[in-house]
Amino acid sequence: MTDSISLDIASLLKAYRTSKLQPKDVIEEVYRRIAARGNDAVWIHLIPQAEALAQAEVLASRNVDELPLYGIPFAVKDNIDVAKIPTTAACPGYSYIPETTATVVDRLLQAGAILIGKTNLDQFATGLVGMRSPYGACSSVFHEDYISGGSSSGSAVAVAAGLVSFSLGTDTAGSGRVPAAFNNIVGLKPTRGVLSTSGVVPACRSLDCVSIFTLNCQDAATVWQVAKGFDTSDCYSRQVPPQTAAIPSSFFFGVPKADQLQFFGDAAAAELYEQGLKRLEAIGGNLVEIDFQPFHQAANLLYSGVWVAERLAAIQSFFETQADAIHPVVRQIISNGVRYTAVDTFKSFYALEALKQEATQQWQKVNILALPTTGTIYTKAEVKADPIALNTNLGYYTNFVNLMDLCAIALPSGFRANGLPFGITLIGQAFQDAALCELGDRYDHYIETTYGKTTPVRISV
Amino acid sequence: MTDSISLDIASLLKAYRTSKLQPKDVIEEVYRRIAARGNDAVWIHLIPQAEALAQAEVLASRNVDELPLYGIPFAVKDNIDVAKIPTTAACPGYSYIPETTATVVDRLLQAGAILIGKTNLDQFATGLVGMRSPYGACSSVFHEDYISGGSSSGSAVAVAAGLVSFSLGTDTAGSGRVPAAFNNIVGLKPTRGVLSTSGVVPACRSLDCVSIFTLNCQDAATVWQVAKGFDTSDCYSRQVPPQTAAIPSSFFFGVPKADQLQFFGDAAAAELYEQGLKRLEAIGGNLVEIDFQPFHQAANLLYSGVWVAERLAAIQSFFETQADAIHPVVRQIISNGVRYTAVDTFKSFYALEALKQEATQQWQKVNILALPTTGTIYTKAEVKADPIALNTNLGYYTNFVNLMDLCAIALPSGFRANGLPFGITLIGQAFQDAALCELGDRYDHYIETTYGKTTPVRISV
Repeated sequence: MTDSISLDIASLLKAYRTSKLQPKDVIEEVYRRIAARGNDAVWIHLIPQAEALAQAEVLASRNVDELPLYGIPFAVKDNIDVAKIPTTAACPGYSYIPETTATVVDRLLQAGAILIGKTNLDQFATGLVGMRSPYGACSSVFHEDYISGGSSSGSAVAVAAGLVSFSLGTDTAGSGRVPAAFNNIVGLKPTRGVLSTSGVVPACRSLDCVSIFTLNCQDAATVWQVAKGFDTSDCYSRQVPPQTAAIPSSFFFGVPKADQLQFFGDAAAAELYEQGLKRLEAIGGNLVEIDFQPFHQAANLLYSGVWVAERLAAIQSFFETQADAIHPVVRQIISNGVRYTAVDTFKSFYALEALKQEATQQWQKVNILALPTTGTIYTKAEVKADPIALNTNLGYYTNFVNLMDLCAIALPSGFRANGLPFGITLIGQAFQDAALCELGDRYDHYIETTYGKTTPVRISV
Repeated sequence: MTDSISLDIASLLKAYRTSKLQPKDVIEEVYRRIAARGNDAVWIHLIPQAEALAQAEVLASRNVDELPLYGIPFAVKDNIDVAKIPTTAACPGYSYIPETTATVVDRLLQAGAILIGKTNLDQFATGLVGMRSPYGACSSVFHEDYISGGSSSGSAVAVAAGLVSFSLGTDTAGSGRVPAAFNNIVGLKPTRGVLSTSGVVPACRSLDCVSIFTLNCQDAATVWQVAKGFDTSDCYSRQVPPQTAAIPSSFFFGVPKADQLQFFGDAAAAELYEQGLKRLEAIGGNLVEIDFQPFHQAANLLYSGVWVAERLAAIQSFFETQADAIHPVVRQIISNGVRYTAVDTFKSFYALEALKQEATQQWQKVNILALPTTGTIYTKAEVKADPIALNTNLGYYTNFVNLMDLCAIALPSGFRANGLPFGITLIGQAFQDAALCELGDRYDHYIETTYGKTTPVRISV
């Protein structure tokens, strides 16, 4: 066969329906590619090929139209439980073998998706760089010297490199968006509580979201639809209101004032952002300058304030007894959690509430915000030399989103002259998840981008 | 004139419309009654009669139908700011003179209400007894040996004794409900954020509500309608959804299992509660036994957990420099706030979220909960002998309401053989405020109760 078929969900389902492919063909190709990449630091635990093929075999007795993710290969960040497989959170000393599969993974498996493996991450999902793991540092699929972004590093690379159709990450501060930008894929950060976090190792339990990496926005909507659902075993689970309106064809998008934008000296990123805004205008958007100050101040609260104590609360007994087993940068960050009192905590909540109310005034002017996903990208060497400050820079446009109860979709938005990708993020108010996917789809079709690293996304059959 | 007219709002407005009375007549009678009661510990600051009369005079140029609270005398708990008048929060050392009137008071004044004075309270609104104030302890209007309840002690007694038509309290743990029960009046505890707390001395700022005491449920609805409104100067202010449904004519009310009810040995209260439930059935209610456990556990979190740190956060610099100026019982409670860390705080939030989710399952069975407002009432001597434990008993049915984002209305519900009143509280989910007032009105009409201490509520004209 001379056709080449993308690993995106719609293409695979079409190929299954027309019998051009069977799930086992895709699984075999996936494992060939994984082997071909060698030690890329993407995987912490790979499902044995025979087991994945057995799952594909089970599907032979089912009809492709019964199962929305029939035969779709996917990966799961290794801070999300899969029964009988170790959950490490990228900390071998912390590792445990769960009895139960996380609700959100179970929903995907029930829908016919085939699990390929558990992926690498910044330890305890603490980081935006993909460098804080004893299992090695992933690279951007576009250049081995550049970081993949994190914390969901392996999950993003697995999709971008064409190893799986989609993957799950988690996102507390931007971990589901930053690596999407650095690997030219879609990263959906749903509204808090819409996807169950039951069976997920907490980072900041009151803020954590399970996120979705895909090759396009329609796939993100498809996976979101399957994965979401109220879960009584997750105390932060929320019901999605029955029907939320789409973003209108003529819409308003908020952009920070010029002096509130930060590209950290990256002129190419600034230029690509401008181009992205013009594309938004071309699909019906009206640019509205907003005051980014309340969002920026909320972003600063996340790592410089009391929420770090949630990271400590999540692993407190481990931290108190085996601190040496923790990555030194992660340990340094989490150890700050002991400094804060209950009084500090409540005062921070008051500050956040005040900022949310200020932000409400900005939201009255716009349907969405349109921000760079990150202001720049770094090499591994740069991050190694200054691991905390550069990580902070990468959160400039992401850290406030969960604190302010917003949802977001990170989209590919062009390439620098040096071949590295740039990303734009559309941010909506709570429960706008599906509307963002639909608007992202309009944006994608306009720019006719290719996703991931094009070549390996296609499969010869 | 031989008529006697109740101070309730509808009666006064009718008398004004028919010119049977003018506001100045009412104001003069109010000050006569206040003088007649002598030192009853109700007032911390009384507006000079001449000033109140001047306000009545201003109304002469206005039409009664223009202003929903035309010429209605009211009182304000002394932890709520009125410009140029000291706010003490019942702590003279803490006292300050605000420049600005609290939003909620301003809305009432703009609607034609006439302020009579600022009322006594448990210091810093910390207590349910009305005994923790250097300005003296109010008594229940039914017996001088019995406590008035608190913390909004003076506000409740002022209404029950016929000194004002309505009053504002605050309610964090039950301070707007317990003294309503002990003085046979209506106490509306609105949904958090519906009435602005801007200009209110915080108790637990994330939980505090301004509450309303009135002589009947229609008055509560009238005052609520005027007082509510989104306020950008209050970071916890919330928009009320446009229209919320009334409680249907046939409705379901939740009652704890028999072994979860607590009357602390007060058989008369248990008997009156049973009668109250039968009355609810007589107006269309269907009794549903619920599991009170999640509500009870949430109640325990409030005073035995991290939320005490909010009380400390509210007055931290004062506490650190002038602890001696604080009432010893209040000081003892608030000093516990220093014990808790940020990690403790987040863990308590997780526990609360889990309890809220458990409670959701109970809410699926019922429209409202119907609980005793308190399980019993105490004498001043009893409370003096055991100030903290007995206070805790009084919060058994009230402490969880704000933590769980509920609203409530405390209603008179009969008298014990010893002449002391009993109260029942109807509890609804967030934004059911108006629906509770309407249902309370159905209950009131059924039992044809008299409110407050009947005699002084009537005014001879």
